[in-house]
Amino acid sequence: MDPVKPRPQPRLVEVGPRDGLQNEKNPVPLEAKVAFIDALSETGLKEIEAGAFVNPKSVPQMANSEQVFARIKRKPGVLYSALVPNEIGLDLALAVKADKISVFTAASETFNAKNIKATISQSIERFRPVVARSRAARLPVRGYVSTAFWCPYEGKVAPEKVVEVVKRLSGLGVSEFSIGDTIGKASPDEVRRLLFLLLKAVPKDSVFLHFHNTFGRAVANAIVAWKTFGITGFDASTGGVGGCPYAPGASGNVATEALVSAFKAAGSDPGVDEAKLKAAAAGLFKHLGRPVGARPAK
Amino acid sequence: MDPVKPRPQPRLVEVGPRDGLQNEKNPVPLEAKVAFIDALSETGLKEIEAGAFVNPKSVPQMANSEQVFARIKRKPGVLYSALVPNEIGLDLALAVKADKISVFTAASETFNAKNIKATISQSIERFRPVVARSRAARLPVRGYVSTAFWCPYEGKVAPEKVVEVVKRLSGLGVSEFSIGDTIGKASPDEVRRLLFLLLKAVPKDSVFLHFHNTFGRAVANAIVAWKTFGITGFDASTGGVGGCPYAPGASGNVATEALVSAFKAAGSDPGVDEAKLKAAAAGLFKHLGRPVGARPAK
Repeated sequence: MDPVKPRPQPRLVEVGPRDGLQNEKNPVPLEAKVAFIDALSETGLKEIEAGAFVNPKSVPQMANSEQVFARIKRKPGVLYSALVPNEIGLDLALAVKADKISVFTAASETFNAKNIKATISQSIERFRPVVARSRAARLPVRGYVSTAFWCPYEGKVAPEKVVEVVKRLSGLGVSEFSIGDTIGKASPDEVRRLLFLLLKAVPKDSVFLHFHNTFGRAVANAIVAWKTFGITGFDASTGGVGGCPYAPGASGNVATEALVSAFKAAGSDPGVDEAKLKAAAAGLFKHLGRPVGARPAK
Repeated sequence: MDPVKPRPQPRLVEVGPRDGLQNEKNPVPLEAKVAFIDALSETGLKEIEAGAFVNPKSVPQMANSEQVFARIKRKPGVLYSALVPNEIGLDLALAVKADKISVFTAASETFNAKNIKATISQSIERFRPVVARSRAARLPVRGYVSTAFWCPYEGKVAPEKVVEVVKRLSGLGVSEFSIGDTIGKASPDEVRRLLFLLLKAVPKDSVFLHFHNTFGRAVANAIVAWKTFGITGFDASTGGVGGCPYAPGASGNVATEALVSAFKAAGSDPGVDEAKLKAAAAGLFKHLGRPVGARPAK
């Protein structure tokens, strides 16, 4: 048996309270959300996306993000971030003292048009003042790039397109990039091809991979990115909460538990307590009307 | 972008009607089982484990295997195999004209003792006449080696132990080996370590990997085995049917759909029609009381 080589420690970003819950049909009561985030804060996770300041008509599950930020117990050493689409959202995020701001666009024009009613260029222009003001407030800015591998409307997305979008975000002052496999269709080869190009453009530590598990490949993709390229940033949702609006009944974000256990098994420890994650998931799923890990109903 | 290299075609063995269904609580009516197997026969799969001639008190779900074999429509070019524990089982399998026989043992003494009330050596001795008679009848014999990575009772299983069991089965005349990650806990590194040793002992094409998806790593493990070692034999269950008796509520065999889509995405095609697989799963799951892909209740 070869000795286990030390491997770089993964940095997991918990997106369950935002990306996960926004795709849930049943509204989750404020207290349950706060309890979920408070439980996550005790697991060892260092970053939790706690809410979004977006149009409550489009995303009703995020309508109470202000109250969420007001009520959670902030654990020292944990970053609580908020997704914002524009300066109005930023004002709200600054008011609740979010530790970090996220903006979002996509690598597919059709997806962007349908999702945020803007071209990619328009969306990036809209971020310009958001990023500038966030940086002036000394808040780091994460940029989500959705449909970085496949688009539900356009099919395969060229890696060059993703690199171009990331470069433009980087030019605005966005300091980290969450590269999203929105429909969970990327293969390990596609992940390799994108990273091969992307890492020529931006530093390794600025890249976070955001995998959905629709086709069961999220863990495979994460392990490939980590082992082959030394990528350590990964988004995940405790309990695999959320679904995929483009494939009803499919699973959503990769479960934080699945990444933690896979990385541990591969010889590195993301520093997250599995029993506590499990307890956090159990508390939340009581409100979702299905067992932990079960997929949402079609 | 690098050109996609041709990769060896995976050979998937469908074990849903046997390993999947024997772990389901709700009894599946005979007609539904036959319909499931008949639907699988049309998908392009070349081998289907259709039943088991085991003690009906221990495994009530397999009690009607004789009727199953009598009623299925056998598609030319598809092998229909049967699991047998002993010569009595073999007699039944021969009577229904199974195309292939499977015997089963484990790499962990404790697991074997609890599962089949025999030491590994005793189980292998019991196979001796089964294998001899199967070969005399010109039927190939597959040997299942359970707990080849982790045992629910003993913990980590040494790869050397697996190699030893495989060698002994090989010595009896068993021609292929299904190496089982019974509790779904193997990591890609553990898969590599075992294959590194095992492929010194037996030919690559005799090795089939039988992954469970308890921790979400089944696809990752399959892709690693295929890319790194050129292993092409994989067991899978359509719909991910079945569960894990050692981790209630966990998923069971990796879904055939997940392997087919992962291999296609990786540039090779196992020759199985995804839409037909999906339809086969949908037909079966009507009888299981939960949506396709959902985990069994705890």
